[in-house]
Amino acid sequence: MAAPIALIQGASRGLGLEFCKHILKNKTPAAVIATCRNPDGAFDLRGLADQHPGRLTILKLDANREEDILGAADRVKESFGRLDLMVNSAAMLHPSGKGETSLRDVSAQGIISTLTTNTVGPLIMAKYFAPLLQKGSGGFGQQPAEKAKQHSGIIVNITAKVGSIGDNGLGGWYSYRMSKAALNMATRNLSIELGRSRPKVVCVSLHPGTVNTDLSRPYHRNVPKDKLFDTEQSVNYLMNIIDMLNIEKTGKAYSWEGIDIPW
Amino acid sequence: MAAPIALIQGASRGLGLEFCKHILKNKTPAAVIATCRNPDGAFDLRGLADQHPGRLTILKLDANREEDILGAADRVKESFGRLDLMVNSAAMLHPSGKGETSLRDVSAQGIISTLTTNTVGPLIMAKYFAPLLQKGSGGFGQQPAEKAKQHSGIIVNITAKVGSIGDNGLGGWYSYRMSKAALNMATRNLSIELGRSRPKVVCVSLHPGTVNTDLSRPYHRNVPKDKLFDTEQSVNYLMNIIDMLNIEKTGKAYSWEGIDIPW
Repeated sequence: MAAPIALIQGASRGLGLEFCKHILKNKTPAAVIATCRNPDGAFDLRGLADQHPGRLTILKLDANREEDILGAADRVKESFGRLDLMVNSAAMLHPSGKGETSLRDVSAQGIISTLTTNTVGPLIMAKYFAPLLQKGSGGFGQQPAEKAKQHSGIIVNITAKVGSIGDNGLGGWYSYRMSKAALNMATRNLSIELGRSRPKVVCVSLHPGTVNTDLSRPYHRNVPKDKLFDTEQSVNYLMNIIDMLNIEKTGKAYSWEGIDIPW
Repeated sequence: MAAPIALIQGASRGLGLEFCKHILKNKTPAAVIATCRNPDGAFDLRGLADQHPGRLTILKLDANREEDILGAADRVKESFGRLDLMVNSAAMLHPSGKGETSLRDVSAQGIISTLTTNTVGPLIMAKYFAPLLQKGSGGFGQQPAEKAKQHSGIIVNITAKVGSIGDNGLGGWYSYRMSKAALNMATRNLSIELGRSRPKVVCVSLHPGTVNTDLSRPYHRNVPKDKLFDTEQSVNYLMNIIDMLNIEKTGKAYSWEGIDIPW
């Protein structure tokens, strides 16, 4: 079987970087394509490429720019011809770095920026990379014996529990919550379009827990210590879920424990 | 009791226009503030103003422009000092006039335009008009006897059943579905922030059914005749729901039959 190929978007730090590390370490001989806005400044990624010669490709891609995504998809097509897993990881809480605590903090520009990065980016990624995922060799997830139910690729959109409308009891964080609710709709729509005929692409939203990254840093003091994950813990949990994915599990949102999150 | 005051956003045609007609006709002596992007071209609204002297105020407001919303809120504050009902009605299916049938039709610019009009607009309306709704006299909905549970105002965001993630079995219409899912999250968040303390503002999303308007026109041939409403039927249904609203019913999405829509 051909070596699995994973593309991690938003890979220069945080969860994205950790996905790259995890796959390079635990999924030999898988190849990883790491995309980020500024490869020149992505020292961690470049160190990782040196540690794993020939297995990590770093591509410049700003998910806010459709032409960047198209260009990156063309390069992946030329160099690899297919893709088995795509993880959309880049996200912001709000351009200010802090979620809105009330309507007073809400601005049109703030919401639009957040939606563009967190929601539009992942969907445009799916638009251009879906054809490559449909050519995938199914190297991630769990393949059932029945051929008609096997999948060629997997799309993971990193969501957040606060993006669950039904679970929302606290309010606030307007932009972030709205962006993740809309992203969950994108996941659902993608699962339908890409699950309809063969080759099938499994599409899910995954909630990584509250992770020690720049995004959530201002809020860590409110999180119980055993619920604040480092990126390694979180990605371990998420890769366990990814390892169990199949077409029966498509079109849903799962938390790090593997539990369904209500929409 | 003071005459109720309703503001209808996106009032020059379709459901918005019908809300104005309905309230002027059936809710005497209620006053209506109708907002639209181009009052000079809003002949139906101007005719309505002539039919109901002194009861209909037409204000220029483009919900894509935060400064327009701020300016309109200032004018309503000066002239009325309060608001009892706000209906956010303006929406588009997609800038092309047709919902995306597959990923091929998806574009970043198309999604962002749709989100800006359908999602960001209503939330920014809430930002600037919430203080006036908090000063409302509770002239719409059903007031319980218990004073602590009475509401001062109501926000209605016009949603769509296709904006339900849980109900999505068909896919397609990426931009529209995502915009309404995000709008439902906004409704939920608003209901929490504005329901927390007194004065309380009830916030709901309402699904008008499939209505004979420009938005859905390209799709009417697929709709059974008894399920394609004219705007009068639809607004009758929706006003019946609004008449029964109270703070116990806040933070949900209801269809025209009054049934909860899953998120």
